[in-house]
Amino acid sequence: MNARQQLRKMMQEPGRVIQTVGAHNALGAKLVEQNGFDAVWASGFEISTAHAKPDANILTMVEFLNAASQMADATTLPVIADCDTGFGNVNNVIRMVRDYEKAGIAAVCIEDKVFPKMNSFIPGYQSLAPKDEFAAKIRAAKDTQQDPDFVVIARVEALIAGHGMEEALERAAAYDDAGADLVLIHSKQKDPGEIFEFSRRWTSETPLVIVPTTYPSITLADMSEHNIKMTIYANQALRAAVKAMNAVLAQLKESGSLLAIQDQLSPMDQLFELQGLKDMIKQEEHYKKLEVR
Amino acid sequence: MNARQQLRKMMQEPGRVIQTVGAHNALGAKLVEQNGFDAVWASGFEISTAHAKPDANILTMVEFLNAASQMADATTLPVIADCDTGFGNVNNVIRMVRDYEKAGIAAVCIEDKVFPKMNSFIPGYQSLAPKDEFAAKIRAAKDTQQDPDFVVIARVEALIAGHGMEEALERAAAYDDAGADLVLIHSKQKDPGEIFEFSRRWTSETPLVIVPTTYPSITLADMSEHNIKMTIYANQALRAAVKAMNAVLAQLKESGSLLAIQDQLSPMDQLFELQGLKDMIKQEEHYKKLEVR
Amino acid sequence: MNARQQLRKMMQEPGRVIQTVGAHNALGAKLVEQNGFDAVWASGFEISTAHAKPDANILTMVEFLNAASQMADATTLPVIADCDTGFGNVNNVIRMVRDYEKAGIAAVCIEDKVFPKMNSFIPGYQSLAPKDEFAAKIRAAKDTQQDPDFVVIARVEALIAGHGMEEALERAAAYDDAGADLVLIHSKQKDPGEIFEFSRRWTSETPLVIVPTTYPSITLADMSEHNIKMTIYANQALRAAVKAMNAVLAQLKESGSLLAIQDQLSPMDQLFELQGLKDMIKQEEHYKKLEVR
Amino acid sequence: MNARQQLRKMMQEPGRVIQTVGAHNALGAKLVEQNGFDAVWASGFEISTAHAKPDANILTMVEFLNAASQMADATTLPVIADCDTGFGNVNNVIRMVRDYEKAGIAAVCIEDKVFPKMNSFIPGYQSLAPKDEFAAKIRAAKDTQQDPDFVVIARVEALIAGHGMEEALERAAAYDDAGADLVLIHSKQKDPGEIFEFSRRWTSETPLVIVPTTYPSITLADMSEHNIKMTIYANQALRAAVKAMNAVLAQLKESGSLLAIQDQLSPMDQLFELQGLKDMIKQEEHYKKLEVR
Repeated sequence: MNARQQLRKMMQEPGRVIQTVGAHNALGAKLVEQNGFDAVWASGFEISTAHAKPDANILTMVEFLNAASQMADATTLPVIADCDTGFGNVNNVIRMVRDYEKAGIAAVCIEDKVFPKMNSFIPGYQSLAPKDEFAAKIRAAKDTQQDPDFVVIARVEALIAGHGMEEALERAAAYDDAGADLVLIHSKQKDPGEIFEFSRRWTSETPLVIVPTTYPSITLADMSEHNIKMTIYANQALRAAVKAMNAVLAQLKESGSLLAIQDQLSPMDQLFELQGLKDMIKQEEHYKKLEVR
Repeated sequence: MNARQQLRKMMQEPGRVIQTVGAHNALGAKLVEQNGFDAVWASGFEISTAHAKPDANILTMVEFLNAASQMADATTLPVIADCDTGFGNVNNVIRMVRDYEKAGIAAVCIEDKVFPKMNSFIPGYQSLAPKDEFAAKIRAAKDTQQDPDFVVIARVEALIAGHGMEEALERAAAYDDAGADLVLIHSKQKDPGEIFEFSRRWTSETPLVIVPTTYPSITLADMSEHNIKMTIYANQALRAAVKAMNAVLAQLKESGSLLAIQDQLSPMDQLFELQGLKDMIKQEEHYKKLEVR
Repeated sequence: MNARQQLRKMMQEPGRVIQTVGAHNALGAKLVEQNGFDAVWASGFEISTAHAKPDANILTMVEFLNAASQMADATTLPVIADCDTGFGNVNNVIRMVRDYEKAGIAAVCIEDKVFPKMNSFIPGYQSLAPKDEFAAKIRAAKDTQQDPDFVVIARVEALIAGHGMEEALERAAAYDDAGADLVLIHSKQKDPGEIFEFSRRWTSETPLVIVPTTYPSITLADMSEHNIKMTIYANQALRAAVKAMNAVLAQLKESGSLLAIQDQLSPMDQLFELQGLKDMIKQEEHYKKLEVR
Repeated sequence: MNARQQLRKMMQEPGRVIQTVGAHNALGAKLVEQNGFDAVWASGFEISTAHAKPDANILTMVEFLNAASQMADATTLPVIADCDTGFGNVNNVIRMVRDYEKAGIAAVCIEDKVFPKMNSFIPGYQSLAPKDEFAAKIRAAKDTQQDPDFVVIARVEALIAGHGMEEALERAAAYDDAGADLVLIHSKQKDPGEIFEFSRRWTSETPLVIVPTTYPSITLADMSEHNIKMTIYANQALRAAVKAMNAVLAQLKESGSLLAIQDQLSPMDQLFELQGLKDMIKQEEHYKKLEVR
């Protein structure tokens, strides 16, 4: 069963909440897999941060694609790619789907904002695209994919942009009609109230996705109860890494001693393992023996 | 004073130990700068790990260069690029110097092993290049650079490969004659003994560089006393990140709750700052005002 | 004198018409130089065609930049990069200028259309950006450049979009005020009439640039007389290549014989020369001798 | 039937000579298809020339792969990628096969020389790899591929390197044993004599491939008669392009007039067609109608 089939299968299990975790490179994807999660989120926010660039389409599709493609090579989990607004108009979406599908990505997620987008948590810069224009992008994405298991997620930013629940529901319905496989309803509230309301009022069978960055109190049980099919823990691993790197670097600078930080480091051996160096050496030995037949 | 001039200046300060820290992307370079270090090491080991590829020239020059180039864009510190063996023969070294210099890199470091190299801490796979062949690469690198402040570091692997102190000294002298600006003497001993011996017997004025991954007990005072001009803390930040990411992911998986890990994360705001998002918004506002003249 | 200084110098020679020729890769740039032209146009149309992608921002900035950067490495002539609309908003323009300047490009040219743009010769799809918004992009580009010799060209699409001469002049004046070093007035007429009219009514000292693809009857003398400072022969070399490749392939297919086409081919030796293979071999021999000291 | 299946099918047709033509970008691949050939050769020589870099592994795998991948996107024909020596040792070959297979390439061809290789037509620089070492690379490539239709071609350089017919036959047999799907026997003679001899003495059923650059007098009938299954016209299209571009540029420079060269150019319309711009516009119109439901 390939990664896309895995994702489709999880989408069909009743009551299951697919736990997806953000990453920005192949290593991160591997750690997500090793810790038992279900899928990897090739996060635009994380990839932008890793490049020290604003999460506002300063990086191009090619740079996001490269990162996502490397993740797909490094993990057997489905990779779900954050594709912002689709990088332009419907023609750009069509190129995007071709390239992401070729890269082995299981799902793409596009949001109904205007290019270049601004990160959803920055108020005052959230311009929505016309509903029909975005629905056409969803349709184009579905028409373009070649593998029927490829998944297209429509991300609704109406709540983020302050347009209210009615607008959010109406937009979600239009994207659902256009063929979206999943609908991501995004919220920046401190509690999951509006997500629960959306879910109660959502009458389609198309499953829902959430990104609980600002409402961390939500539990898996809450999600299951409110028919949330997927949760995306979008950026926590990177934020843990930044905190740890800062702590270790500060200590190293102050102490001038590697000994002081040694217990906060993964051993070299674990990193060789994560690189695949040990498997490579076995492989090399295997073929060396062939050479000396 | 640009980054190359800074590096040259630090190289000339008597008794100073230049503290260089490994990174694998722009974000890492920025954290190294924010924590007060002197230079960034664009580590082949770290970049390979981030790609989940063995540190054995599985990645190509282009991929190492892209990572280093992004670091140079993100920091005002000099970036010192780990260039393995120079990615082939003398012709490859010449392309390499042109491209790294164009990318704004302050220094390149090449080692006297055979392409494709194996990570230095993996015993049994350390083949040295002929001394004269490697000296010619150093000379070619020096002949190719256009900015006189660009620095070429010759990394001596004779101790790593088990060829002994005499061979190490002889090779270092040949590379020094060929024009190396710095000599990196690499060791995998658990203590700095052989480094100190090398230093005592080193009669040239060309300064020395070390990578104390396996002998963390060495102090800055030790280095200064033994005429070590630069120390490279090559991979500690990444190893701290891996440990932290694993811990947080394990907790998240077990608890199913973001609340459980919240205090181990850098706040979103700090990441927006690291991205440069806040500066970008100021900039955007500035030009919006121009638009409405 | 570097490539940017060369371009500045040519811009200041009274009566001189700078002859710029389109290319899509390093080889093309080299042929432009060998044939005695003054500058290379890193053509969006040519680069798109080489990728078999529409000239409509289907390719991203990164792909155009890579092509232009390779041209800059291969020629001593100034490379003038076609940057479409600047690849998004003012923030994208700022990234663009940083990256193109780093890549050794002498000048960037941006046009006052909406992203994603459509090729100028396709009627019905030419939406102009608000004048002040585009003027702000020009200003941002000028504020961002670090080398004072870097050149920013404002391309006026008002005639192309059917907005008439007054609009074209007004827009050009606004971009000139915003700091444009050159103004490109684009026309798709079959004769240079409207270009001449524009030139007559242009009162600023900022020099003019044209792209006479659709009005090939214009001569260098005409240009000089009408104060045109630069002409861009934007895509003729590629179109000659396509015609020749098609002819040779058709003959080869029909005849099934390489002999039949032999006289239509450049000799292998010339291609080795263009690659720089011969210089490389000399270099390699030089360093081999060093090795055997 | 996908491109790999097409190639397999052609390989099985008795007496058929598969006509493969070199290209260096997506456009070239499209022209090869439009002119009725059977397959595209992603030529290392052509790609190097397009980058103005020597055909001597100055470019890295990533750059050759990008070019080949773009060709595979632009044509329905099988793309056969020239992979030089496999870009290093057996570990590099394994990465290579994974990446080329993912890129949609139908076949890879590796040659039994030492990395970094030199173009085969440059005498005095042709060092052969040990036979068993190269056979192990072939075996590793076959073990790595996931699609059974993926094809691995072993290129024998013994005649090129002056080692004689016996060595060539012995090496070819070893690579055949290791699993090569096709054997490319390379020659730089002015006539096909040694190719015919090789073919007469070749007793395996594994089909043969030739590259008649230096012996253009050979006909398809000759090939069929001598059991040659595939001919690669490796670089003629590029050489025709260079000749035509030089001619047109020289004329343009001398005459200062676009009119003088107009009849040597493909019309703009044909280039829009090759870009796929016309199809894109139809697509865009289709989705615009959806938008206004």
